[in-house]
Amino acid sequence: MTLQPDGQGRLRHLLTLDGLPREVLVGLLDRAQAIVDGAGPAPAALDGEAVCTLFFEPSTRTRLSFQRAAQRLGADVLNFDASSSSTTKGESAGDTLRTIEAMGVRGFVVRDGAEGAAAALAEVAAPGTAIINAGDGRSAHPTQGLLDMLSLRQAKGSDFSGLRVLVVGDVRHSRVARSDLHALRTLGAGEIRICGPEALLPAPEEMQGCPFGHDLDEAIEGVDAVMMLRLQRERMEEGLVGSLDAYHRGYGLTAARLRRAAPGAVVLHPGPMNRGVEIDDEVADGPQSLILRQVANGVPVRMAVLETLLLRQ
Amino acid sequence: MTLQPDGQGRLRHLLTLDGLPREVLVGLLDRAQAIVDGAGPAPAALDGEAVCTLFFEPSTRTRLSFQRAAQRLGADVLNFDASSSSTTKGESAGDTLRTIEAMGVRGFVVRDGAEGAAAALAEVAAPGTAIINAGDGRSAHPTQGLLDMLSLRQAKGSDFSGLRVLVVGDVRHSRVARSDLHALRTLGAGEIRICGPEALLPAPEEMQGCPFGHDLDEAIEGVDAVMMLRLQRERMEEGLVGSLDAYHRGYGLTAARLRRAAPGAVVLHPGPMNRGVEIDDEVADGPQSLILRQVANGVPVRMAVLETLLLRQ
Amino acid sequence: MTLQPDGQGRLRHLLTLDGLPREVLVGLLDRAQAIVDGAGPAPAALDGEAVCTLFFEPSTRTRLSFQRAAQRLGADVLNFDASSSSTTKGESAGDTLRTIEAMGVRGFVVRDGAEGAAAALAEVAAPGTAIINAGDGRSAHPTQGLLDMLSLRQAKGSDFSGLRVLVVGDVRHSRVARSDLHALRTLGAGEIRICGPEALLPAPEEMQGCPFGHDLDEAIEGVDAVMMLRLQRERMEEGLVGSLDAYHRGYGLTAARLRRAAPGAVVLHPGPMNRGVEIDDEVADGPQSLILRQVANGVPVRMAVLETLLLRQ
Repeated sequence: MTLQPDGQGRLRHLLTLDGLPREVLVGLLDRAQAIVDGAGPAPAALDGEAVCTLFFEPSTRTRLSFQRAAQRLGADVLNFDASSSSTTKGESAGDTLRTIEAMGVRGFVVRDGAEGAAAALAEVAAPGTAIINAGDGRSAHPTQGLLDMLSLRQAKGSDFSGLRVLVVGDVRHSRVARSDLHALRTLGAGEIRICGPEALLPAPEEMQGCPFGHDLDEAIEGVDAVMMLRLQRERMEEGLVGSLDAYHRGYGLTAARLRRAAPGAVVLHPGPMNRGVEIDDEVADGPQSLILRQVANGVPVRMAVLETLLLRQ
Repeated sequence: MTLQPDGQGRLRHLLTLDGLPREVLVGLLDRAQAIVDGAGPAPAALDGEAVCTLFFEPSTRTRLSFQRAAQRLGADVLNFDASSSSTTKGESAGDTLRTIEAMGVRGFVVRDGAEGAAAALAEVAAPGTAIINAGDGRSAHPTQGLLDMLSLRQAKGSDFSGLRVLVVGDVRHSRVARSDLHALRTLGAGEIRICGPEALLPAPEEMQGCPFGHDLDEAIEGVDAVMMLRLQRERMEEGLVGSLDAYHRGYGLTAARLRRAAPGAVVLHPGPMNRGVEIDDEVADGPQSLILRQVANGVPVRMAVLETLLLRQ
Repeated sequence: MTLQPDGQGRLRHLLTLDGLPREVLVGLLDRAQAIVDGAGPAPAALDGEAVCTLFFEPSTRTRLSFQRAAQRLGADVLNFDASSSSTTKGESAGDTLRTIEAMGVRGFVVRDGAEGAAAALAEVAAPGTAIINAGDGRSAHPTQGLLDMLSLRQAKGSDFSGLRVLVVGDVRHSRVARSDLHALRTLGAGEIRICGPEALLPAPEEMQGCPFGHDLDEAIEGVDAVMMLRLQRERMEEGLVGSLDAYHRGYGLTAARLRRAAPGAVVLHPGPMNRGVEIDDEVADGPQSLILRQVANGVPVRMAVLETLLLRQ
């Protein structure tokens, strides 16, 4: 965390939303909303700059969203695909970073299956370099958290104090859930409930103050927002989940279940969805779904982040 | 087909040349020819727009040609590589489309091994989105058909009524042959002959009015254009073709055979070529070959298509 | 070599530094230095042009460096990835080149595991096309040679006559070593020593006038520059090297060994490094290391090359 702001309190990297000051978080959301509203960045604000996606774990949709954000800012994009690269030649991630830095690249979007990977790169980054965490293990995915907050704010207003939010599914392994929780707390959400099968819930002490439950029909009662998580297929191979059918019976968001939530409750999902497993078509494509809005918000949120980190003052 | 034009008869998608009105087809060819002649599009005509290549089947040359066309129009390009993507996470092609649409992308170039894939995406696409079929199964490859027609027109003039065209090879499995046939008929080609081994010919009712033949020496007699098709290696594994040698003896275009065609006959091939199998070097690289001209025409044809589909009025 | 300059002595391709006239080599270095010093190319000097990376052997860092150089010149970039391409459909490299040329691409950056691959493409290239060798087998990697010379010149001044240079490691299989040797000779380096295990040294007649040695402690005595080479892991599989440990004991550059060189001696490495094998952290990251400077110089060197080859007069 101490890596994120520099001496003058200016944001240098975006590694996690955990501990990010409220005014910084709200500032990013406000800037993203301004871009949505047509107050775009100065044309070619990042003209001449280059942004490198450094993905040690594949994620097409996240990579494309950052790429589109960089393009809209006029920045050039370099894609580093870790599968066909010198990482297979034994080069460390730090040396890879320093090498691409030396080519004049100042912005890095880092995805890695291991916790702390982006922070480790921020430790060794040159002074002018910005590291953006695009997902590290089960730890954090801060731009996803930001775009979820922006989507919630557009639907429910910016005062979160009365908001009851339910997070459903594999919270234990989810970086999205962690970034959402950090942001929801910073923004003062009224209540944050957690629901999922025992094997997929985190240690209670990790999410103190959040009521845990195993019964979705009960947990969803009266909430204003349902944040569904993707069920990774490997959870079944690991024996943490029985079958897709059983999971759907217990934790799939059906239209019937959604009716137990507050009127006008909204549904979020980070994608890609397992339709018919954690979410039904009727809900995913229904009027309460913010799912495509989330994707749409991803681009201005990432533009706001890139602009904040990379614009030379 | 009903998907292609919108209510006002404006082209929304380009899925097939089958049934495309003659004036639309000729309009695209005229525009492409104007670009060839130096009447390029307005500089950066598609500035700020993004085009996504969505390839579920690899095809480097087609992808690069569309990418170059988009670049020349000032559009940004996003490449979606289906092999390392969330399709492997079980996301449907429709959800992938909607996701990338939500990022603000309006043009999609779709390649798929299955027939109807591009049309299926057009069914679910948002109102402002344009789907361009870059090859679906054995069904259609409309921009290849257009660039073949442009190449023929440059060589033989735009009145096709006296033109005798021979299509040689694996017509049964060829989307290129089907798109060429549709376009040749729309443009009123005088005669379209089909030649190939029995196992590689389509059902006669599919190509009514086209004389079929198995003897290339006979079929090539007096034609003005020979459209060679690529022999896919899997046809041998499937037992449809004996050996490459036997195929060459029966259906390879040699200089000797080409001399049986009309004087000044031209030779086309969609590439990549199997030299020494369906075509000899002497022919491929000879003065009657339009093969590189075809590739060159691919870029302005695709520029004309992108411009027609994506330029906001 | 006769392929490189055209009739008017103008550089058409960059295939090797072997035999490149001194004034051409120095001209490229001077131009690169001017770019480093802020005398960049005219903005968007190559606007509208496209550069294609044609890599038959993967090399992320080299590809990204060329891509960044092309971007900074305003050129569009097309990446041809040989692994998912029509080369797997049996198309020859020459046909691939001609196909992409036909799309209007004039600059090709070629990487191949086989010697002479880039030169073979230059043989069949169209008149306006420029081929840049980005590494062919063990033969040449001319832009690496240029950036090494630029780095040496920045550290030691442009008069190389008093310079004692030591090249250490797998010289036999190294295209980097060969390009460095050609450039060092052309620039009149005072002494060029070669050191490595017997199995990794070239035939002495290939590098006449260069003292060979097997003892690094002895060879490094008093040199002004140490050019370390990467130890490819396959050398062990081939039985040419015993173990990484043994290699490090004999040929790893440690701080202690570096102290035997002349005061102020500089260390170069083409990357990616095997830290703890051919080079120790203390040296790689120490004040005498030019390693990141080399990477940084790669971009302006490649800009100078692209500009020289592609700018229309």
